[in-house]
This record gives sequence, C-alpha cells and structure tokens, in this order.
Amino acid sequence: MGPHPAVAAIRLAVRRVLHDILDEHTRNTDEHPRDPGGSGRPSDGPGRVPGAPRERDTSPLVLVACSGGADSLALASALAFEAPRLGVRAGGVTVDHGLQAGSDLRAAEVSLRLRGLGLDPVEAVAVTVGRGGGPEAAARDARYAALDAAAERHGAAAVLLGHTRDDQAETVLLGLARGSGIRSLSGMAAVSGTAGRYRRPFLRLDRQTARKACMAQSLPVWDDPHNTDPAYTRSRLRHEGLPALEKALGKGVVEALARTAQLSRDDADALDAWAGRAEAGVRDADGRLECAGLNALPPAVRRRVLRRAAIDAGAPAGSLFARHIEEVDRLITGWRGQGAINLPGRVVARRQGGRLVIRQG
Amino acid sequence: MGPHPAVAAIRLAVRRVLHDILDEHTRNTDEHPRDPGGSGRPSDGPGRVPGAPRERDTSPLVLVACSGGADSLALASALAFEAPRLGVRAGGVTVDHGLQAGSDLRAAEVSLRLRGLGLDPVEAVAVTVGRGGGPEAAARDARYAALDAAAERHGAAAVLLGHTRDDQAETVLLGLARGSGIRSLSGMAAVSGTAGRYRRPFLRLDRQTARKACMAQSLPVWDDPHNTDPAYTRSRLRHEGLPALEKALGKGVVEALARTAQLSRDDADALDAWAGRAEAGVRDADGRLECAGLNALPPAVRRRVLRRAAIDAGAPAGSLFARHIEEVDRLITGWRGQGAINLPGRVVARRQGGRLVIRQG
Repeated sequence: MGPHPAVAAIRLAVRRVLHDILDEHTRNTDEHPRDPGGSGRPSDGPGRVPGAPRERDTSPLVLVACSGGADSLALASALAFEAPRLGVRAGGVTVDHGLQAGSDLRAAEVSLRLRGLGLDPVEAVAVTVGRGGGPEAAARDARYAALDAAAERHGAAAVLLGHTRDDQAETVLLGLARGSGIRSLSGMAAVSGTAGRYRRPFLRLDRQTARKACMAQSLPVWDDPHNTDPAYTRSRLRHEGLPALEKALGKGVVEALARTAQLSRDDADALDAWAGRAEAGVRDADGRLECAGLNALPPAVRRRVLRRAAIDAGAPAGSLFARHIEEVDRLITGWRGQGAINLPGRVVARRQGGRLVIRQG
Repeated sequence: MGPHPAVAAIRLAVRRVLHDILDEHTRNTDEHPRDPGGSGRPSDGPGRVPGAPRERDTSPLVLVACSGGADSLALASALAFEAPRLGVRAGGVTVDHGLQAGSDLRAAEVSLRLRGLGLDPVEAVAVTVGRGGGPEAAARDARYAALDAAAERHGAAAVLLGHTRDDQAETVLLGLARGSGIRSLSGMAAVSGTAGRYRRPFLRLDRQTARKACMAQSLPVWDDPHNTDPAYTRSRLRHEGLPALEKALGKGVVEALARTAQLSRDDADALDAWAGRAEAGVRDADGRLECAGLNALPPAVRRRVLRRAAIDAGAPAGSLFARHIEEVDRLITGWRGQGAINLPGRVVARRQGGRLVIRQG
C-alpha cells in the first residue's frame, strides 16, 4: 500500500524541486558528466563510483526552513524522505523571532523534531526583529537574513520554504491592495534569492494537503498564534477576507489568484525587458531621455522606463508609487509648461528643451 | 454659493467627457475648423451645406443610459445640466428588461424623470432577456443590443453609462476569479464599443458620491432589488466580498482595484501589440509557426501568439482558457513527442517537423 495521498503529493512536489537542484548542481560542480547519452535524467546518483569517495564531496546540501507549523513541517518530512533517495544531504533551520514568550523553547522543540526526522545539520537561530516597515515586514527581513547566513555557513545549495498556494493567493491580494500594477500581483516566485537559493515546492499545493500530510504521519503541528491574530493584515485576510471572497465568487478563487500570480509575473518580466531595451533607444548621446521618443512608446512601456530612470537617479523603489510615475508621465504626454516634479529620495524630474531630466538635487 | 460638492463632482466628470466628445465630433464633421490656427485637426468632414443652420445640425446628441438607480440618475442629472452649456443635445434611454413584475411601469417612471430633467429625446425600450452565459450576462447582452440600436436610431454620438469606481473594483475581482491573466483584470474601459460609442464618466468616482448627488438634488432613487439579491455573483461581491476585503486590507481597496484595472489594461495592450509583431516574425513562408522562433520569445509573448493563432484557427475566445494555452505551449517548451492537443471549437494543435500547426479538424 502506498503512502496517504497527501503524503504522496508533498513528496512529489519536493522530489521535483530536488531534481531541479541536482541538475543545476551537476552543471555547476560535476567535472564528470553523468548523462553523456543526453537522454534526460541522470541514471546514477551523484558520485556512486565505487572506490572514489565522491559521495560526501559532491552531494549538495538542501536546508528546509521550518517554523513547526503544518506547511513547513510537512515540507521537512518530505525532504527527509526524498533527499537520501536522491543522494542529497538534508538539513533544517528554525528561526526564533523572540516575539512570543517561550519562543526559544519552541525553537528547541522544532530542532528536536527535525533531528527526529533524520535531518542533519539542524540549527535553531535566534534573531532580533527590528521595526522597519511594520511588524510582518520586520520579522520577514530578520528571518531571511538568518536563513541567508545559515545557508552560507553550511554551504547549502538551496533553502526550501513551505509557502503554499493559499499563501500565494493571500500575497496576490496583498499586492492588489497596493494597486501598484502587475508586478505586485505576481506573488512569490518558485525560485528566488541570490543564485536562486530559495525554493518553494508547495506553491501549487494547498494548505489543507500539507496539514493532512502531517496528520497522516502523526506529526504534531504547532499553530502560530500570530496566524490567527487579527492585528496582522495577512491573518485578517486568511480568516475573513478570503473566505468571504470564496463565498461570493466560488471555491476556485485561491487557484485563480495563484494562476494570476504566475501569469502576472511572466507579463511583468516581458514588459520589464521591453522597457530595458526601450530605455536605451530613447536616450540621446549625453544619456538624457528624449521626450519625443518617450511619447512614442506604449504607456505601459513608457511608465516602466520612467520608473527605471527615477530609481537609477536614486529614488527608493519601495517609496515610488504609481501616482509619482503618473505625474512624471504628464511631463511627456500632457506638457503645458508645468514645473519640476519632486520624487522620493530627493529626486527631481523636469522637462528641459525636449529632454526629461531626472536627478537627485 | 456653488452646488453641493457631490453635484460639482458629477458635473465635472460629465463635462470632461462632453469636451472629449465635442473634440472628436468637431474633427469628424466640421468643415469649418473651429481651430484654424492649425493645431493638427483635420478640417474637412462629411459635407455640410454652407449657409444652413449649422448650430442645430452639427451639435452632437449624447444619450444617457438610465436604470433609475442612483449612479445613472446622477449621470442623467449632470448631463442635463452640462449639455446645453456646451451646445450638446442630451437624451436618455431606459431599458425594461422585463425580469420583474411592474418593470414596464418602472421604465415609464424613469422616462418621465428623464424628461423632467430636460432630456430630449427620451425612450423606454423593452427587451427580451435570453439565457446565454447566465442571468447577468444575458441581461447585459440584451441591454447593450438595445442601447446600440437606440444610438443608431437617434444618430447619437455617444451613450453615457453610470459605472462607478466601485463597479470597476467589482469587475476586477470578477476577472480575478477567472484567473485568466491581466486582460481579465483590466475591468471596464472609459471608452468602449463601436467607434468608442460608450463612455463611462464616473469610472473614477465612487458610488457614494453619485448617491449624495441625487440626495442633494432631491432626485428619488430606485434601488434595484437585483443589486441586493445574493443569487447574483456581483451582488454577493458588493455586499459581502468587498466589505470583508476592505475590513482585512483597509479602505483603499476599491481605489487600488480601480487603479489595477487601468494599469493592467495598458500592460495588456502593450503585450498584445508585441504579440502581433512577434507572430509575423515566427511564421515561415507558408504561414506556419516555427517552433524555434516561438521558443525564443518571452513566455508572456509566446502564450499570446499561441492564443491569437488558436482564435484565428476558429477557437472561440471565450472558451479558450489559460490551461489550454499552457498545454499548447508545452509542445514548444516541453517537447517530448506528445500528440495533438484538442482545443475548443474543434481546433487541434500539433507539432510537425519543427512547425506548430493549429487548425480546425
């Protein structure tokens, strides 16, 4: 009898990502190509050559970031199951944010649990959460800094994150609430971070599957009280916003939001590439932007060129909103002699003799 | 003392749109340019006999579509106020959908109200609502067919529609629920229909402003029971989905959704234009699509080229979903000898010797 369907689903998701990591690892480090026939998958695991102690040296290390919640615990269990079968070393990191009483004990418990699954190395990292950008953003920044450092310390090829399709849907709605365009609708990437360090194997899996997989494997799940605290935007969205939306629009909303993320990401990438090429075409010999050239671009491309130019001039991307770019755009498309436009980061945009000058001043 | 701020707001919105309509009308019909300074407008249109009473003949007719609800009644009142001041003739149409008992009386009442505002001509049109695509889509189809016919009958230059920013936000969420990409997020256009017939002056105004403007002008508002009937998706969204989303994400959600619509529309337009150019570049001498060329395109552009090709081959646009295009895309990006892909409208896509062949079969 095979495993519970939920367990099979989480393992398949992790297996696919491990194959990707192995393929890349092979390309990057293996001096003896394993697949000279070119038929697809390598037929032998990394360095199983008898007599040569390659096993330890070439097998990549993959870490799982685990809070002890259902999603990341399911992920850890699937990694612990799949990694040895593919010749991958598997470890785990849990981050103690120090935001709740007893969080250090919790982190120690999660570490024990990860070791119990057979992961090695396992590390609990305590971080200090700052205050920048609100409590959720500050916790996230501290967490990723700690994960980056752990990945470097252990020489990990990848860090797996337990974000599910439900998290993705929430992220899309949070982006929608900013109203700043399709880039903010594109949610979380399956692969992100320096050199594609972070991988999200569960991005097409729903939260319920992860929870069922934990139950089927008798893994005790920790429910972070922050996840149900209405002080947090994401928690309100999860427990009130999205259910109400599902009630109005039908059960397919989460899937539709996740698909929107993928489509928006591809669209935003394509338009960014176009804007990059277009920008080169509308700069004069001195590197100044020519208004006539800008005016001839489609609005979607022109706005992206203007945004790039403002960021190049020193405007912080996070403070540069659609309304700022719209105002600069009117120097091109609605020119009636208006004055300079002030942008964040003390950047000023003005029109001068058919040229758009954007600089710090 | 000026008018109530809400009344001032609806009038300004209508005035702007009437200016646009007048500008276009002048370009299209006036043989004596009003702007002989040579600002670039063509000066010859279909002939008017010199010496004839031009004022009356050349002043365009603008109709308002009015249900008797707050939004469209506010719109009618603003049109009645602004049109004579700009030399525009203003009329009104109300559509009797025949879906509720006494709807004919309601239509007659709305007609009286519109005449009372000074609109002329005013017409009540009874339609028969079919069943295609669900009750809301069927009513909409019947309504637009009737408005198109009324516009033709009266030779109207434009038909104003009372959709507000709130309607736009709801439309974006309905599109989001389809999960079919940014075109479905782009909501309603400010200008749409044959030759830009339909105009939506209130797309940046909130519903509350329209209602306040009616109250300030002592206009009795009719509240369509369909708008609060939970059998209708839009009604559920309005009364449950959106309020819950606002509670979770903050009051700016409606504005953010409306801004998303505009940005998505521009992005979708730019990518469609790119796909049109790209398609020409990846067809061989016989007009077949070359897989190598398709593979080199960004995914967002390639998917659009494939969608265009499928529609050209006879697949109905409304039945062609993202998952269909994804499957065809795998013939290009994930080729492993798979068979033909069946698409709606008996269209079949297959890969043959480095070419993608999409045709009805």
